[in-house]
Amino acid sequence: MLLKDLGEESLIEHLARKFNVPHRRIIRAIGDDAAVTVERENTCLLTTTDILIEGIHFSLEYSQPYQLGRKLLSISLSDIAAMGGEPLFFLVSIALPRECSVEFLEELYEGIGDCASEFGVYLIGGNTSASDGKVILGSTLLGEAGKDEVITRGGAHPGDIVYVTGTLGDAALGLKVLKGSKGSAAGRDILKGPCREAVKRHLDPMPRVKAGRALAEKRLATSMIDISDGLVREIKRLASVSGVGAVIESHKLPISETLKERVSKDPGEMNLALAGGEDYELLFTSPPEKTQFIIELARELDLPITPVGKIFPKQRGVEVVDEKGTPVKPTKDGFEHFE
Amino acid sequence: MLLKDLGEESLIEHLARKFNVPHRRIIRAIGDDAAVTVERENTCLLTTTDILIEGIHFSLEYSQPYQLGRKLLSISLSDIAAMGGEPLFFLVSIALPRECSVEFLEELYEGIGDCASEFGVYLIGGNTSASDGKVILGSTLLGEAGKDEVITRGGAHPGDIVYVTGTLGDAALGLKVLKGSKGSAAGRDILKGPCREAVKRHLDPMPRVKAGRALAEKRLATSMIDISDGLVREIKRLASVSGVGAVIESHKLPISETLKERVSKDPGEMNLALAGGEDYELLFTSPPEKTQFIIELARELDLPITPVGKIFPKQRGVEVVDEKGTPVKPTKDGFEHFE
Repeated sequence: MLLKDLGEESLIEHLARKFNVPHRRIIRAIGDDAAVTVERENTCLLTTTDILIEGIHFSLEYSQPYQLGRKLLSISLSDIAAMGGEPLFFLVSIALPRECSVEFLEELYEGIGDCASEFGVYLIGGNTSASDGKVILGSTLLGEAGKDEVITRGGAHPGDIVYVTGTLGDAALGLKVLKGSKGSAAGRDILKGPCREAVKRHLDPMPRVKAGRALAEKRLATSMIDISDGLVREIKRLASVSGVGAVIESHKLPISETLKERVSKDPGEMNLALAGGEDYELLFTSPPEKTQFIIELARELDLPITPVGKIFPKQRGVEVVDEKGTPVKPTKDGFEHFE
Repeated sequence: MLLKDLGEESLIEHLARKFNVPHRRIIRAIGDDAAVTVERENTCLLTTTDILIEGIHFSLEYSQPYQLGRKLLSISLSDIAAMGGEPLFFLVSIALPRECSVEFLEELYEGIGDCASEFGVYLIGGNTSASDGKVILGSTLLGEAGKDEVITRGGAHPGDIVYVTGTLGDAALGLKVLKGSKGSAAGRDILKGPCREAVKRHLDPMPRVKAGRALAEKRLATSMIDISDGLVREIKRLASVSGVGAVIESHKLPISETLKERVSKDPGEMNLALAGGEDYELLFTSPPEKTQFIIELARELDLPITPVGKIFPKQRGVEVVDEKGTPVKPTKDGFEHFE
């Protein structure tokens, strides 16, 4: 069945049946002019919104609708994680071509629904519309954090250590592999190949919600940002808002075994970890005296948390150096939307 | 200058300078991973999100970027109005072609900014990205209302009177005129012609925020919805959620002098008032004993509020009748996104 045969009204009813589960803080979800929810006392409301456009942010040649649905929510979850917040409620905007199949939409919602269950967040509204050929998706996620828990980009101090969670560059490697395989028979074997984890990181990234929340609750981070547009770009953003400088040591960057192997053959591949987009790992700063707590947290979460540099006074600027202290210049410092 | 020459970072800085005004409930606005705001006690949070896609929801042949910016915010304001809420904070998603001029973007933000000032709402975040040719805009608006003030679609009772604010059909008439003038020299004179008000209603609709808020504060409405997809479509939605039937009397619909004149020549034009989209007026129900208060409210607001029908038990269904009581069948009951 095609969407044009189903109609918008039936679609919304279908979604309301699937997603309208009772929650004591949701007074009104799908099916009214706006969602109605109740906040907890003494918390801040965190709000983030993202948009995914076919041909710009994803390709249906690589992405299944299920993965797309997951990713739509995951990138917003990553933003709330980067504030140290607890994600709660979300809305989605979905614009699909009239000739789109109902199955496509169902798989999309299956992905959204599974991701929502995993992170304990609830769909409370949104909108649907036709598009003129491209799939366009939007998400808005609400979260909250105690008033003294919120971790902004603005609190890094000289002397703080710079940390990143997980590994860097895999998502960019995954995208590179997907692009390289385009149209070839090898493409279908990618998910069995050595880069399958990297491909998965690109198609279905894992937002670090638990880590972000734990850093906030334990008051371990002075500033935090998620790495969506590449490490170098993000440390520059964080340093700019905090009014500090920073030195990143490229040889300390945590990279996967797969990327390590590629770097051993071509050192230029290290650029994927420095400037490749869509890692959705957390980049944060913490004073040296908290080192032991960070080590313990990494163990608790079963997630690598790696010191990769240090915060300096503003005059120092932001630079990346190799193990000899020689400045390294990434060929492109992250993902620039309008370049 | 083109957007690709400006770059995303400069753009966000530009916006932050323009829009980051101090507000005691905004802790963190543009420039972090998520916006941080504080809610008032004993209120509900209202959240709505909308998307506008070039070629589907608007045409740059008719709309100036300034008007588009206003409309982007207005359609979300209308949703909060329809809940009886006070709009507060908003986020925007803006995807523009790389070849778009910075002037286009500045005019767009000028429109957003002027509309925001008029309604006392504050931009707290969003995102920007490239698109592959089409302008794609998203808005998310947060509002609030006292827990016992919120007006949903679900409270209409048999015996209630059905009211609408303002006049109906003008926006659809405006769009029709714009489409008719497409490409012709006459197009440029539309804004001086007899339909200029109707054209304005389409390009720059007026959300009924004051009316919605007053109805909530004075507890005058049992249910409410905004008319974005045509009166017939919206009364069906409201009746369905409330579990009631309704009869709308077509001869009672408030229409402008311009539309009246057209209907006198072609009665079929009445369809614009019954089923034409984008009026963004409020449709609400109120018990007969509150009639006097509604009349007073209309006077206070200097806004027509017109009784157009009555709520019946569910079995009656939803129908539109003319002055003789004969059922009227609109040719298309509103705007169906997937048809």
